Amino acid sequence: MRPLTADALNPAVLNVQYAVRGELAIRAEELRAQLKEDNHGLLFDRVISSNIGNPQQKGLDQPPITFTRQVAALMEWPALAEIAPDAFPKDVIARAKELQEEIGSIGAYSHSQGVPFIRQNVAKFIEERDGYPCDPNHIFLTGGASAGVSLLISMLISEPNNSGVLIPIPQYPLYTATLAQFSGVPLPYHLDEAADWATSVHDIEAAIEKAHREGVTAKSLVIINPGNPTGALLDENTQIELVKLCEKYSLVLLADEVYQINLHKPTTHPFTSFKKIVSQIQSPVPLVSFHSISKGVSGECGRRGGYFECTNFPVDILALIYKMVSVGLCPPLSGQIGVDSMVRPPQPGDDSYELWKKETDEIHAALAHRTGTMSQRLNALPGVSCVDSPGALYLYPQIRLSDKAIEAAREARKEPDAFYALQLLHDTGICVVPGSGFGQKEGEWHYRLTCLCPGVDEYVGQLEAFHAKFVEKYGAAN
Amino acid sequence: MRPLTADALNPAVLNVQYAVRGELAIRAEELRAQLKEDNHGLLFDRVISSNIGNPQQKGLDQPPITFTRQVAALMEWPALAEIAPDAFPKDVIARAKELQEEIGSIGAYSHSQGVPFIRQNVAKFIEERDGYPCDPNHIFLTGGASAGVSLLISMLISEPNNSGVLIPIPQYPLYTATLAQFSGVPLPYHLDEAADWATSVHDIEAAIEKAHREGVTAKSLVIINPGNPTGALLDENTQIELVKLCEKYSLVLLADEVYQINLHKPTTHPFTSFKKIVSQIQSPVPLVSFHSISKGVSGECGRRGGYFECTNFPVDILALIYKMVSVGLCPPLSGQIGVDSMVRPPQPGDDSYELWKKETDEIHAALAHRTGTMSQRLNALPGVSCVDSPGALYLYPQIRLSDKAIEAAREARKEPDAFYALQLLHDTGICVVPGSGFGQKEGEWHYRLTCLCPGVDEYVGQLEAFHAKFVEKYGAAN
Repeated sequence: MRPLTADALNPAVLNVQYAVRGELAIRAEELRAQLKEDNHGLLFDRVISSNIGNPQQKGLDQPPITFTRQVAALMEWPALAEIAPDAFPKDVIARAKELQEEIGSIGAYSHSQGVPFIRQNVAKFIEERDGYPCDPNHIFLTGGASAGVSLLISMLISEPNNSGVLIPIPQYPLYTATLAQFSGVPLPYHLDEAADWATSVHDIEAAIEKAHREGVTAKSLVIINPGNPTGALLDENTQIELVKLCEKYSLVLLADEVYQINLHKPTTHPFTSFKKIVSQIQSPVPLVSFHSISKGVSGECGRRGGYFECTNFPVDILALIYKMVSVGLCPPLSGQIGVDSMVRPPQPGDDSYELWKKETDEIHAALAHRTGTMSQRLNALPGVSCVDSPGALYLYPQIRLSDKAIEAAREARKEPDAFYALQLLHDTGICVVPGSGFGQKEGEWHYRLTCLCPGVDEYVGQLEAFHAKFVEKYGAAN
Repeated sequence: MRPLTADALNPAVLNVQYAVRGELAIRAEELRAQLKEDNHGLLFDRVISSNIGNPQQKGLDQPPITFTRQVAALMEWPALAEIAPDAFPKDVIARAKELQEEIGSIGAYSHSQGVPFIRQNVAKFIEERDGYPCDPNHIFLTGGASAGVSLLISMLISEPNNSGVLIPIPQYPLYTATLAQFSGVPLPYHLDEAADWATSVHDIEAAIEKAHREGVTAKSLVIINPGNPTGALLDENTQIELVKLCEKYSLVLLADEVYQINLHKPTTHPFTSFKKIVSQIQSPVPLVSFHSISKGVSGECGRRGGYFECTNFPVDILALIYKMVSVGLCPPLSGQIGVDSMVRPPQPGDDSYELWKKETDEIHAALAHRTGTMSQRLNALPGVSCVDSPGALYLYPQIRLSDKAIEAAREARKEPDAFYALQLLHDTGICVVPGSGFGQKEGEWHYRLTCLCPGVDEYVGQLEAFHAKFVEKYGAAN
């Protein structure tokens, strides 16, 4: 028989790139394994995976919200409520009982769109957030936001290599990866680093017109708000203009809003959902808003839970989405109950409220503090500039490199930012993602790092020491 | 703006069909909602979803394995081991502690291929099952078997509308749905109902040759063993011939083995994995074997857990698979720990062993008993013939219908088997899937029902009474 070779596979698969778990992350896993050896010979004793927003990973150990986990434990083994009733607060037992009555066993498949009761709770959460009605039948629970994004993009690519999707640069590489998989055309628009990564409606319109001139049909606009990797927040006026742009060009608006409560400066940089804007101006724009339990304060990445809400979608298209999700049977129940805990946290007066408040306040405060400290100190390094991010979990510093460094990267057959990041990993055990994975202007270099770390002073100290050593070796930037 | 319409979407999406959650299941959900009304006016007081192998669903309530759920509860809230130590058997506490040390928090993303420690345990399980080595790096943990099947098929379709995949008829409609989504060509081969749904190597070869004559390239052979919906088990000689056929035509063998322990007559109808056959005859055939925690005795559908093992796959293709799964980040941790419990059940001498043995013995015995009773009594009905299934969770009776019934179906614009199934649903609340969803020979009609039900006598009694009424109304078959 002929052996199986890559050229016998779907060529689109070969084009998929996903840097967040790419070369750097794979190398980091190898180093992590090497650390278990007796004489590992490495310069560090732990790997910190700052390549991915994974708050509960070993070494970071952001504690889970106790309420969420207590409810989940009772859902796993309901008999516990009788066997060890004193182990749980009263509101937890009541909540688990209510969920059990609605769901039955979490070992059963649910409705493919998600447990109806949980979708009702999501709808109430959205109504309270925005002040506009929300229909539970327009909500699809998912195994994390990524699953929903991938499904929607696959449905919108009506003609391979011709259907275009507007994506921000820098972007979260899920978008380019999914477009590559389904042979959609990425239509990049640049965010303005000099204006704190602002979104320009004018630049997006230029990208649409350019695509049309090239015979590519723009089908959809992706907005990530708060931004990833930028952390930027849109103001409402820009959001209104973006919706009107979607009206003008008949675009489906895909709003990645998974960081909606990760706000470090909520007074000056608040979050407004696109659902609210679309409702407020009574726009007919088809909108999909994605949310997740992996980020926010819950950080429950491993549960794989999230949802998307469709607005202005006709019922026949909702039925098509239902059909597509039904082939995958249902989202994980552990993720679904995680969504329920996210949208129905304990309220003042509940037994669990004080602890929940303390835990979530601490997570918000720690993230804001680390983000501020890290951006300030990175900004102070020679050749580095870093926008102080008001939201999300990341920073995206720009690094200017010397000709000598760029030459050395070329010799190592690496992009200069990957070259920098690999040396950082080997020197410190800190794994970041090179900017080439997110996109940047020609001749610019960045990296993305999460603002999650065990002790921010020691962590930034390592980044500073490494940068000094790098500059010493390769010289200062031009 | 132009409104969003279905013709602006990916046309492949429109072609996807998935009958297991199709018209009948949607109608069943509507009836279930109607039952909650005070004067519902229905002829039954509960809907039984026999359309889907979902053992723990409300109304069936197959109990979960206590060991699995106790471990999972401790993983959700590890503090329970200190707060309520007496609530758990010692081996459960030890197991959870071991998993926590390896995994950390189940709220964190794991390795995209699955937790390395759990993959090692899967490899040991496979080695003990087959007696041949297994490499943990060739195993991918998944969110249920479906996710893996969909990924592999999407990768194998190298040329839309030209790459073919051989699928059994009747088949589990995941295969046709996935092929439709990725524009692959289904190449049907018929199983022989008169020979207890046997697989004919000759018929498969004829299907390959026919495809080649039509310019379609056969890329892969799907085998479902034990069969779904047929429950048939392959003998080893047939398996060897199938592997040799794959060698001859350079096919990737996709072995859906999710029912491998659902054996009702293990002495006469044992299960042999394709991994064992391929290893035994040292075949170079690329093989993917799929397994799941949704079936078997665990029935943990809602956790979304499973794995696939790649044999004879070159490392560059394993790296491509890794890249693709990494875009989705990781399979749900609740499913991953469910896989661990499945492959490492309690052993004699462990505190949990007696209960685990009792629970699993009861599930096996009940399934065998129900399958035998149901097939025998269905077979005795006029116009119905039903192969007594030795494996899996289903029966696939053939129903012969009168001309009057077929005419009535035509008037109702339904396939005759869908017409029969809809009337069954409206009369009894029992939801089955028409054979047209799985495939059948022209002019034949079947339905699939699960062998899961609360009380088999009452349940079959309802099927019998309905059939009698149907025959009375429409006359006996020709």
